[in-house]
Amino acid sequence: MLSSSTSIPAVITCKAAVAWGAGEALVMEEVEVSPPQPMEIRIKVVCTSLCRSDITAWLSQAHTPIFPRIFGHEASGIVESVGEGVTEFEQGDHVLTLFTGECMKCKHCTSDKSNMCQVLGLERRGVMHSDQKTRFTIKGKPIYHYCAVSSFSEYTVVHSGCAVKISSTAPLERICLLSCGVAAGLGAAWKVADISKGSTVVIFGLGTVGLSVAQGAKLRGASRIIGIDTNPEKSEKAKVFGVTDFLNPNECEEPIQQVIKRITDGGADYSFECVGDTEMITTALESCCEGWGVTVTLGVPKVKPEITAHYALFLTGRTLRGSLFGGWKPKSNIPKLVDMYLKKEIQIDEFVTHNLQFEDVNKAFDLMREGKCLRCVIHMPN
Amino acid sequence: MLSSSTSIPAVITCKAAVAWGAGEALVMEEVEVSPPQPMEIRIKVVCTSLCRSDITAWLSQAHTPIFPRIFGHEASGIVESVGEGVTEFEQGDHVLTLFTGECMKCKHCTSDKSNMCQVLGLERRGVMHSDQKTRFTIKGKPIYHYCAVSSFSEYTVVHSGCAVKISSTAPLERICLLSCGVAAGLGAAWKVADISKGSTVVIFGLGTVGLSVAQGAKLRGASRIIGIDTNPEKSEKAKVFGVTDFLNPNECEEPIQQVIKRITDGGADYSFECVGDTEMITTALESCCEGWGVTVTLGVPKVKPEITAHYALFLTGRTLRGSLFGGWKPKSNIPKLVDMYLKKEIQIDEFVTHNLQFEDVNKAFDLMREGKCLRCVIHMPN
Repeated sequence: MLSSSTSIPAVITCKAAVAWGAGEALVMEEVEVSPPQPMEIRIKVVCTSLCRSDITAWLSQAHTPIFPRIFGHEASGIVESVGEGVTEFEQGDHVLTLFTGECMKCKHCTSDKSNMCQVLGLERRGVMHSDQKTRFTIKGKPIYHYCAVSSFSEYTVVHSGCAVKISSTAPLERICLLSCGVAAGLGAAWKVADISKGSTVVIFGLGTVGLSVAQGAKLRGASRIIGIDTNPEKSEKAKVFGVTDFLNPNECEEPIQQVIKRITDGGADYSFECVGDTEMITTALESCCEGWGVTVTLGVPKVKPEITAHYALFLTGRTLRGSLFGGWKPKSNIPKLVDMYLKKEIQIDEFVTHNLQFEDVNKAFDLMREGKCLRCVIHMPN
Repeated sequence: MLSSSTSIPAVITCKAAVAWGAGEALVMEEVEVSPPQPMEIRIKVVCTSLCRSDITAWLSQAHTPIFPRIFGHEASGIVESVGEGVTEFEQGDHVLTLFTGECMKCKHCTSDKSNMCQVLGLERRGVMHSDQKTRFTIKGKPIYHYCAVSSFSEYTVVHSGCAVKISSTAPLERICLLSCGVAAGLGAAWKVADISKGSTVVIFGLGTVGLSVAQGAKLRGASRIIGIDTNPEKSEKAKVFGVTDFLNPNECEEPIQQVIKRITDGGADYSFECVGDTEMITTALESCCEGWGVTVTLGVPKVKPEITAHYALFLTGRTLRGSLFGGWKPKSNIPKLVDMYLKKEIQIDEFVTHNLQFEDVNKAFDLMREGKCLRCVIHMPN
């Protein structure tokens, strides 16, 4: 056991997959990783999985391009060293990274209604929250972060509020999925929509997030879970997570919202947009019922950031609500999900379709863009 | 007491204010009012007040023009005769009309989560729900209804599910306001937003609906109620209903949402759009806080029916919800509001700025368009 007072961490030089420009294949580079600053920790990444929002930000079609940059925000690892003032972690702790942190002190962290930490919330400028600087350089030149996590690197530095300690018995190559995708979907179903037993649910987009919503709906006892995807290969896998009806809009003769309204007698009780397409949010609203229909939007839009919807959809009793990380308070709630996994109460393994070595990280990008994977887990070198 | 079996109602010829075209002054005409059909009642209108949505539909800028038509949907009256099968009402009963009805049997009426009756809900085609025909004619030519109420007539016919019996001790010239505007605002605050004690509230548009939201917020113990209106004359009246801060966007140097964010430390807990302007719904979303901010839209847009908003407003934890008639179940809930008024638990009198005779109905339109009134109560001839 090594406490922060007994170690003076030095710069680490290691391999990282650097994105030099929008849509350009990542390049494996030697990067310098600074020692953790006060209240920060440096993590040896063990496993990191690729999430769709890494790709969205990498393509930068609806985002400010920030390059060169190290992506990756869904990861597990082991604490390598801790910065001044850190008492919550010590070297050797097993952790999950958090792309949206929890300072435990701000008015959102101290409210039970929000997970939008005002200090360590979603970081969009590619730097660390505390000093607006980076902890990565290549020959002294700064390399930007992504969501203040940047796990496509053998080592990374995060704020201690952007990581959570988890049981050392949990398999790091699986539970990294709770760092974003699986937790985001479960929380959308349980905390944000609060799905009730016997209800009808429609899910647009059957990636890891959408199928995690399905899993959450199934565990809540939804009577019908309609999964929508244009990729016919999703159909079989969807059953594993509880989808009762698979619909491919390209194979329907009517607009998909009409089909859903017809088969659900007026619309579903809940609809979820997990594609990252603002047009689909409108379709999701149109697919849920008058009176009490709730649409939850989880996706990060790839292109058009504006949602457009007819006012009458709302006036007739529908609700549109956003869900960031499933409404979970990351520090407080995520260890419980890890425990649920260890008790076999939730499924994670079934999402892992590929295991790749770090040098093959670009293959994960290809697989996801081609719709050939759910989660590719990238294993860092020992 | 006259039961339905002992009377055979005949056609009544009476005065009605007919709109012959979009934006054209109403013309006082002799109309024939059919006897009530099965499950309908014919009402002698006593008082009817003008609501903004009458004007919106009359101008028909974002609505299908349906003319000739009899507007008016906020009214009190006395049952004149009842159609076959009606057991709930009898001649002489005091009633409020309901622009959105309650059949008591459909899946929405039997759910406690909805007031969107699937049988007698908002009628948009200018006819009666049951047979898609009108009950008004002029020399045999049909005159269309508005919201299946059409109270700008000495007599009108409504479905028995589109009226509610109320205490005969309640003053009809006041409680007609519970037939739409005042109830809509109170319900938005209480049932739809469910405002909690100590919260901050911002209200866009300080007409009767907006000020009823303010009243509802005040009665729930909101700590700050910010009222927004471009009409400086609203400022004084707003205080009567609990508005603590009046802001006129035309007098602010920054965009109004910035002002609100600044003075509320990040945004209000609840925002309400009571103008009927979809651009303002976006502003209302931007004025409420991350994490738990709820925006309720009540207005019927006058021009552009599409709401446009950046997805990030939702992703960061905001909710947009619509409110039709404040979420009240009209038959079940409105008599309780009448009782609250009789017990002086809610204010109604203060909304009545003008009392007009029926022949002056066009003056009510002028006063509302000029922003010179809250509610004009129109008194029908005895």
